[in-house]
Amino acid sequence: MVADALRGLAAAHPELTVDVENRVIVRRDAPVAGKVALVSGGGSGHEPLHGGFVGPGMLSAACPGEVFTSPVPDQMVRAAAAVDSGAGVLFVVKNYTGDVLNFDMAVELAEDEGIQVAKVLVDDDVAVTDSLYTAGRRGTGATLFVEKIAGAAADEGRPLEQVEAIGRRVNDRSRSFGVALGPCTTPAKGSPTFDLPAGELELGIGIHGEPGRERRPMMTSGEIADVAVDAVLADLDPRNPVLLLVNGMGATPLLELYGFNAEVQRVLAERGVAVARTLVGNYVTSLDMAGASVTLCEIDEELLRLWDAPVRTPGLRWGM
Amino acid sequence: MVADALRGLAAAHPELTVDVENRVIVRRDAPVAGKVALVSGGGSGHEPLHGGFVGPGMLSAACPGEVFTSPVPDQMVRAAAAVDSGAGVLFVVKNYTGDVLNFDMAVELAEDEGIQVAKVLVDDDVAVTDSLYTAGRRGTGATLFVEKIAGAAADEGRPLEQVEAIGRRVNDRSRSFGVALGPCTTPAKGSPTFDLPAGELELGIGIHGEPGRERRPMMTSGEIADVAVDAVLADLDPRNPVLLLVNGMGATPLLELYGFNAEVQRVLAERGVAVARTLVGNYVTSLDMAGASVTLCEIDEELLRLWDAPVRTPGLRWGM
Repeated sequence: MVADALRGLAAAHPELTVDVENRVIVRRDAPVAGKVALVSGGGSGHEPLHGGFVGPGMLSAACPGEVFTSPVPDQMVRAAAAVDSGAGVLFVVKNYTGDVLNFDMAVELAEDEGIQVAKVLVDDDVAVTDSLYTAGRRGTGATLFVEKIAGAAADEGRPLEQVEAIGRRVNDRSRSFGVALGPCTTPAKGSPTFDLPAGELELGIGIHGEPGRERRPMMTSGEIADVAVDAVLADLDPRNPVLLLVNGMGATPLLELYGFNAEVQRVLAERGVAVARTLVGNYVTSLDMAGASVTLCEIDEELLRLWDAPVRTPGLRWGM
Repeated sequence: MVADALRGLAAAHPELTVDVENRVIVRRDAPVAGKVALVSGGGSGHEPLHGGFVGPGMLSAACPGEVFTSPVPDQMVRAAAAVDSGAGVLFVVKNYTGDVLNFDMAVELAEDEGIQVAKVLVDDDVAVTDSLYTAGRRGTGATLFVEKIAGAAADEGRPLEQVEAIGRRVNDRSRSFGVALGPCTTPAKGSPTFDLPAGELELGIGIHGEPGRERRPMMTSGEIADVAVDAVLADLDPRNPVLLLVNGMGATPLLELYGFNAEVQRVLAERGVAVARTLVGNYVTSLDMAGASVTLCEIDEELLRLWDAPVRTPGLRWGM
C-alpha cells in the first residue's frame, strides 16, 4: 500500500526524489547549500502530511511508515544524510510514543555520522493527555504550522538553533481539538478501526481513531465549533492574532468544511480572537475518517511573515 | 448549507468577493481590463469545483446552486455582469440538463444586457450516454482542464472566439471514467443517495451518485485502473502526450489515490500513452463519495503551455 502510493507520488511529482524501497521522499534539489534541512515523518494515512509537504519553503525530506505506524530510525538517518548541506538538520516529530523513540534513536545515529541534529516535538492536541499512542498531548494539526514556518526560517538561511527555536515557538503557541463523525478504515484491517454509531460523534478524537473525551448525540456545526474553539481557548489565551487551520480528517466534504469554518470564525469573533490567516482543507488526515479539527497558532510579526513566505509542495503552495 | 459554506469561503479567502445572498463568487480584481472573463457554475457538492477555481489564471466567477442542483440564470447573469470588462464572457457548462437549460437562458439574458457571451459545453464522461441528469455524455473531470486552460488563454489576452475555441479543443480531446466504492450522502436527505453494499463497486459512476455501467464485486486498484483507462482509451486514441487527472470523489484517502495513480500510470505505459503532466487529488468531487475517476486530455504544445501557466485559486495554484 505505502510502496504503491510512493510510486504514484513519484509519477505525479518529478520535483521530488522518491526512494520507494527505503521509503524516503526528498526534494530533488537537496541538499541546498548553506541551509538547514527539515526532516519529518510518521505513520502513513495522514496525507498530505508529511510527504506532501516536501519542497522549497517547507520540508526537505519525509519518511513514511506503514499506516499509523512510526517509520524506523534507518529511514530518518537516510533522509538526514540526503538533505544535510552541513548546516544541520531539524527533525519535526509528532508526539506519539513510537515516533519519539525512533526519532530519538535517529538523532544519535545521525550525530554518529557527523550530522548536526536538533528536534522539535509537536504536541498541540488539548483533547487528552496520554492516549493509546501517547504520553502527554498528541501532535496533530500544528505539525503543518511548525513545518511551514520553520521551513521558511530555514529557507531564509537561519542557523539550526534559530530554526529549532522558531519551531518550538510555533508549537508552544499552537493548540488543536478534533471531532469525529465517523470512523476510519485501515487497509490492513479492512473494517472500521472503531465503532461510532450513526447519529453520534466523538469529541476530542485523535488522528488514528484513538478515543477522545466523550461521545454525544450528533450536534450542529455551530455547536461543534463552540466546543472545539472553547476547548482550544481553555489552553491558549491569545493576545495577538492567530493562524487558523480548519482541517478535514479525510472524508469531510469541502462544502461542509467551509460551512464549519464560518461557525469557527463566528465563535472566535465572539471570544475576541482576531484571525490573521485561515487555511481550510484536508491537510492532517486520518484516512477516510469523517470529521474535522481546529488548530490555532498565536502569531507575531515574524511568524506571520514566515507563514506568508513562498512555499512549493504538492500539498501546500503559494508565492512560487 | 450552501450559504454557510460561502460565508466560510469568504472568511478564508479575502482575495475573493463572495455575494452570499445572491450566491456569486468573484475574483476581487474583476473585471480585468481588456481580458475575456470565464464564468462557470453548477450544483454544490463538487468542491473545490467551481468556487475553488476562481482566481487569476482560471475562472473569473462561479455560481453555486443548491447541492446537486443547477444554479439559476439570474446568478449567471450577475456573475457575467460583475466580471465583463467589455471583452466578453465565456460560460463553461457541464453537460447536465438543468445546467444547460439555465446557462442557455443566461446567455440570452446577458446578451440582452449587452454582454458578449460564448459557451463551452463539457461532456467528457464515457461511462454512459444519457443518465438521470443528462442527455449525452456527462461533464466531469475535464471541467478542470477546460477551466484551467481556457482561463490561461483568457489571461494571455486572447479574444473571446479564441478562448472559446481553446475550451472546445480541450473538451474534444478529453475523456473520463469514474468508479464508486461507496455512496454519497446529501445533507438534505441525510442518508446515502444510493445503496452500494460493502464489497461491491460501481463502474462508470457519475458525480451525483447516478448509476453507472455495472456493479461488480470489489476489484484491486490495478484491476480498476485497467477498466477505467481502457474505457477512456476506447473513446480517445491519443497520438500525443496527455494530461492525466487522477481524481478522488471526496472520501478517498490521498494514500489510496496515489496508489491508484501508480496503477493508472502502469496501464498507460503498457498502452503506449505518454503522460506529460499528472494531477492527483480530490478536485471534482461528489460530497463524501468513496471512489475515483481518471481523465485524460490529449495535448499539444499550446495546450501544455497554457496548462503550465501560473494559476492562483483556492483549489489549484502554481507559478504565483
